[in-house]
Amino acid sequence: MKKTVVLTGDRPTGPLHLGHYVGSLLNRTKLQDTHEQFVMIADMQALTDNADNPEKVSNHIFEVACDYLAVGIDPQKTTFFIQSMIPAIAELSVMYMNLVTVARVQRNPTVKTEIQQKGFGQSIPVGFFVYPIHQAADITVVKAQVVPVGEDQLPMIEQTNEIVRSFNRIYKKEVLVEAQALISQCPRLPGIDGQAKMGKSLNNAIYLKDSADELAKKVRSMYTDPHHIRVEDSGSIEGNTVFTYLDVFADDKTHVQALKDHYQKGGLGDMKVKNYLLEVLEAKFAPIRERRKEFQKDRAQVMRMLIEGSERVVGVSLKTMAEVKEAMGLNYSAF
Amino acid sequence: MKKTVVLTGDRPTGPLHLGHYVGSLLNRTKLQDTHEQFVMIADMQALTDNADNPEKVSNHIFEVACDYLAVGIDPQKTTFFIQSMIPAIAELSVMYMNLVTVARVQRNPTVKTEIQQKGFGQSIPVGFFVYPIHQAADITVVKAQVVPVGEDQLPMIEQTNEIVRSFNRIYKKEVLVEAQALISQCPRLPGIDGQAKMGKSLNNAIYLKDSADELAKKVRSMYTDPHHIRVEDSGSIEGNTVFTYLDVFADDKTHVQALKDHYQKGGLGDMKVKNYLLEVLEAKFAPIRERRKEFQKDRAQVMRMLIEGSERVVGVSLKTMAEVKEAMGLNYSAF
Repeated sequence: MKKTVVLTGDRPTGPLHLGHYVGSLLNRTKLQDTHEQFVMIADMQALTDNADNPEKVSNHIFEVACDYLAVGIDPQKTTFFIQSMIPAIAELSVMYMNLVTVARVQRNPTVKTEIQQKGFGQSIPVGFFVYPIHQAADITVVKAQVVPVGEDQLPMIEQTNEIVRSFNRIYKKEVLVEAQALISQCPRLPGIDGQAKMGKSLNNAIYLKDSADELAKKVRSMYTDPHHIRVEDSGSIEGNTVFTYLDVFADDKTHVQALKDHYQKGGLGDMKVKNYLLEVLEAKFAPIRERRKEFQKDRAQVMRMLIEGSERVVGVSLKTMAEVKEAMGLNYSAF
Repeated sequence: MKKTVVLTGDRPTGPLHLGHYVGSLLNRTKLQDTHEQFVMIADMQALTDNADNPEKVSNHIFEVACDYLAVGIDPQKTTFFIQSMIPAIAELSVMYMNLVTVARVQRNPTVKTEIQQKGFGQSIPVGFFVYPIHQAADITVVKAQVVPVGEDQLPMIEQTNEIVRSFNRIYKKEVLVEAQALISQCPRLPGIDGQAKMGKSLNNAIYLKDSADELAKKVRSMYTDPHHIRVEDSGSIEGNTVFTYLDVFADDKTHVQALKDHYQKGGLGDMKVKNYLLEVLEAKFAPIRERRKEFQKDRAQVMRMLIEGSERVVGVSLKTMAEVKEAMGLNYSAF
């Protein structure tokens, strides 16, 4: 039986961190066993707001690929590809742009929010403005049926499906496939400073590539309960990043509960809890770090893997394009 | 010595008429002897405002190609191509969209005017909105140095050159080439009803494919001086479409001047002038009509010519894309 097609991916604008691990990477190591999984490195999308800094994008393609391989996303089970290596994505984008109005894009809540966040002011690049359409091309070029997303990305899937329905209706053929959002069940991992979002620009992230020393330093600097000053004081668990991380990463839930009780009662110092978290994280991420080092040594092999995956997707995309062009009556070579 | 590259083309939304002949086609039969000429059938651009009527576009590709061949644009000297067969045009469009702001597109006078003319109201397709960027991709993919345009299209060339300069500056390499506008010296040919613009929707055009009977009927119905009622009355030349056409098409300028004098003095009937115009047009366009019939009989050969030209342009485009990607650091296959 044919497996359900899933598409996920990342913008290569920085190394991947524990937030990515929890929010998506771990899930991908499971999805690859049950689904036909495509993982896209979205360099073209990254360029929509980094056009004047292409090195940032190109340099991180290799880094992100090493992160993928290190966590166990397996090129034998998953097809990795680089967005810019698939011309059909650009071709579909251009075609889909005729099916969406300017007013519709302006109404997209995700675009609205992100335009504010990025501080474009009046200088919104057209590429950024139209990226929901470009994303519809990413999704439909491989006919993805499932797309794992955060809650805030739901309007993007809605836009994709609107385009799919318009296309199939106008060109009178069920060529494109609607995608279903697979909403991440995992709450967002906060930054080590307690901020809701972990990110490179916020300088509050733990990266998969961090050394043991870096990891230790970051864990020891983590935000806890600012009112928990003396060891004997009772401390708060709520909003205490160290306990949030333990909830996510520690397997021994009983021990975590015991620590929580002790901390709330008083008499348990932050450093002790942090040391336990460090132990937990080190146990989980040291093997990933080691694997990552191995992959990083062989740039040629990693890039070859991406290029081979991209070539496979070119094949898939040509099939989709042939169907799209036939439906639109643009298959001139058929004469 | 390398010839200067010129790019021209048409939207395949209807058969070509005498306005096209005078305004651009005739010029192309000359440019092909002195320039490296590319002629693009802009099906993707035609779809920006015909997305729900793709047959209109695809059906006219063959018709427009027959028009080209009939007037003497020669596939031995000119490279014809179909826009949708060049994926690099879509790829460049997507890249250029990051270099242009939404506000900049909104300021484009040609886009403003055309949005009004087409009556989109609030439903402007994104594809139509961004078409100046797409046009920059058409022009730069073949590194055109000269683009014949009407005065009203000058803002499009300006937008192209802005993109060229931004790209070369940001990516620190003189990859793209600025284009020069070659403004048509010929004033616009009015419709047979005297309206300034000749067009299919206005039902006032003489087509290259019109039969002798259709041509005669159209010439006889042409707009003259509405106050010139009796033969003995003096008639006006100004705004008299028949004389406008004679000025454009008749080689015997002395005879035309004699007719003008006689008409203004009185004693020359409209029908006599029209019969002379018909004679002039028939002499010029009967051979074109005959050649057109021959090409129309061999659809396969004409389409093969377009496909071969398109394949040649794919080759040119891959070279441009390789340079573009290298400048942007996206040439991953180089690993």
